[in-house]
Amino acid sequence: MKRPMTMAEKILADRAELPAVEPGELVEVPVDLTLANDITAPLAIKIFEETKINRLFDPDRVVLVMDHFTPNKDIKSAEQVRVCREFAHRFKIKHYYEGGVCGIEHALLPELGLVAPGDIVIGADSHTCTYGALGAFATGVGSTDLAATWITGRTWFKVPETIRFVYRGKLKPWVSGKDLILYTIGDIGVDGALYMAMEFAGEVIRRLPMAERFTMANMAIEAGGKVGLIEPDRRTLNYVRKHSHKAPKIYKSDRKARYREIREYDCSKIELQVAFPHLPSNVKPVTEIPEIPIDQVVIGSCTNGRLEDLAVAAKILNGRKVNPNVRTIIIPATPFVYREALRRGYLRIFLEAGAIISPPTCGPCLGGHMGILAKGERAVATTNRNFVGRMGHPESEVYLAGPAVAAASAVLGRIGSPEELGLKEA
Amino acid sequence: MKRPMTMAEKILADRAELPAVEPGELVEVPVDLTLANDITAPLAIKIFEETKINRLFDPDRVVLVMDHFTPNKDIKSAEQVRVCREFAHRFKIKHYYEGGVCGIEHALLPELGLVAPGDIVIGADSHTCTYGALGAFATGVGSTDLAATWITGRTWFKVPETIRFVYRGKLKPWVSGKDLILYTIGDIGVDGALYMAMEFAGEVIRRLPMAERFTMANMAIEAGGKVGLIEPDRRTLNYVRKHSHKAPKIYKSDRKARYREIREYDCSKIELQVAFPHLPSNVKPVTEIPEIPIDQVVIGSCTNGRLEDLAVAAKILNGRKVNPNVRTIIIPATPFVYREALRRGYLRIFLEAGAIISPPTCGPCLGGHMGILAKGERAVATTNRNFVGRMGHPESEVYLAGPAVAAASAVLGRIGSPEELGLKEA
Repeated sequence: MKRPMTMAEKILADRAELPAVEPGELVEVPVDLTLANDITAPLAIKIFEETKINRLFDPDRVVLVMDHFTPNKDIKSAEQVRVCREFAHRFKIKHYYEGGVCGIEHALLPELGLVAPGDIVIGADSHTCTYGALGAFATGVGSTDLAATWITGRTWFKVPETIRFVYRGKLKPWVSGKDLILYTIGDIGVDGALYMAMEFAGEVIRRLPMAERFTMANMAIEAGGKVGLIEPDRRTLNYVRKHSHKAPKIYKSDRKARYREIREYDCSKIELQVAFPHLPSNVKPVTEIPEIPIDQVVIGSCTNGRLEDLAVAAKILNGRKVNPNVRTIIIPATPFVYREALRRGYLRIFLEAGAIISPPTCGPCLGGHMGILAKGERAVATTNRNFVGRMGHPESEVYLAGPAVAAASAVLGRIGSPEELGLKEA
Repeated sequence: MKRPMTMAEKILADRAELPAVEPGELVEVPVDLTLANDITAPLAIKIFEETKINRLFDPDRVVLVMDHFTPNKDIKSAEQVRVCREFAHRFKIKHYYEGGVCGIEHALLPELGLVAPGDIVIGADSHTCTYGALGAFATGVGSTDLAATWITGRTWFKVPETIRFVYRGKLKPWVSGKDLILYTIGDIGVDGALYMAMEFAGEVIRRLPMAERFTMANMAIEAGGKVGLIEPDRRTLNYVRKHSHKAPKIYKSDRKARYREIREYDCSKIELQVAFPHLPSNVKPVTEIPEIPIDQVVIGSCTNGRLEDLAVAAKILNGRKVNPNVRTIIIPATPFVYREALRRGYLRIFLEAGAIISPPTCGPCLGGHMGILAKGERAVATTNRNFVGRMGHPESEVYLAGPAVAAASAVLGRIGSPEELGLKEA
């Protein structure tokens, strides 16, 4: 009889063709999908070309998404994109995304059905862990490792220990997956899950829409996690069926699996969260925040730029105006999200509220472009990191929150909640 | 009896309180409106502050528009905007535009009704001549001159000679004001009207919508013109009445006014024009252009980012897809244009065609951001300048055209006309 395993262990054991694996063991596995973007792909291409091996293991498993500094913000970024485009043409890479068909990679790939449950995905981008929401073992790697996989189609991992996070109870109004993950990171710290698998479970997760599950898995890396996994359920399979032709491979943790730790949260006590500068773990409940005037709000990113996030923002901004001192930048994560937001009337609401709508881009999240902060400026952002200088000047500040707090803060001109606008129910 | 004068001479004589002026004479005049942007205002502010004169002549006549590198593309641009914002707050400048209420200055000011016929307007931006379409004497100045006027409310000009351009006949399908001005610059060269007033007249101009008149006046500077003037007529006054509470001051050239030259064009012979790299005067009719594949199309700018321009693009892109090799970037010039384009369904058409919609910004026109070209890339743009490196890499190329050629080229993947798509009539 096999020993009981966690979901992460099961995926790695199965794909390594081993009966079982132990945390700490090194395993070699085939890779189902590789990803790089306009920042990381050029370096991987350079390394790949240095090997003189003029062949990709499978061009259809190489995805290149030009999302970070695009539409090209300067000559350097234009040159990076050109390098990627020429590489894509040379190797007939069909999953090359640039221009009007391009979106933020971690929102785009699931939407295009390129990731299925049980897949092993590596990406030269730290938020590759997003696909754990689909039950895929997905993680960020360096450009060198990526280039190696482009040749061999394989990679190696140290099997991670797993922490299981169990979310119980009923969410308060407006509280979303973003608040749960911020709360969790606040609880365990930014290295609380260092090189571990974070497994998100419990009745709250089972009720959580896919968009919010992606948000949670996306931020596993902010606690140091190797992957952030959610067991596929009916909701997952519905999503996959709608978006993909790929066959799902369902892995679930055994009931007796050995965890590094199991942490349970009573969600009925979790309020809307805000992570203060300069760490995602520096969280406070929104009700305990003093008056903090802000200069900018960003609603977008691979963490919270999905249609459901824009729906929350639209509900709050509908019929309201953003504070004239707050540049409010809304960034639909993909062309599909953009078109749907238009069709559903969200864009009209945003424009009438005085917000700016950006084309899909990572943009300000990483201080790239499209809303960079000056000295002393403060932003509330639905993004994933608030390190020193992350969105601009080293003396600027980023406060991380979900779309509800971000949209409400845009109206209030300071950090606050929808309830302060009289919106009691989501 | 006064000697007959041109429109330019009459405005300057009247405002200088002189019975008449002669070309070459220096006159001092009051200034009705001053303009600066996020690039030029910080320098003017620095000079203003060095004078230690802590008073603006009239804060309500100082307009600051943060349009060039916004939404802030980097820390430097964010700092420039911060300087302007702090200055605006300090002097209670009500016409400070940033964020969701901001548009491209030369589209925004007429739309907000800040310019009326007969006004004298100086702006620290070369395309300030745009307002000549309203019959205003409007021209670009350096930041130092602007700072001086912020103190005195006055400026001086050398009275320019005037060239009168008379456009006769009937326009061919799709031919617009952009084609007329490109043709004109092609005819006289980029210094053909150096320090002169260009006066656009004739039956074609009288029938031309305001948007296309703005386009023509906007590009007077590309022939070296000091101003580009169109006599106010019923169409002008309707526009002004709709947008402004300011009283128009109507100046028209005397029939016997002395011109440096009068040039007449038979418009029935003018085809759609394309200005080849690297001068706006390097024009060719679209029918005489060889196969030139392109990488990018930009529809926007102070020259051609108005609602009427987007309407032309929408007509051509409706039900079509842009070529997958062409990043097609559409930039509504102002928040009003953006909202109206949404309301009229243009944005839906653009998105379905696979285009990118940018928030209002000068952006790529001057190589700022939002679509910068890599080495060897070619763009068709509705902008105003195609100098070496204007939109990015020194070895990139910009082809100037009107919205019809730009939109058709986006679909064709090469420079071409709507007629090649079977669209015979505009």
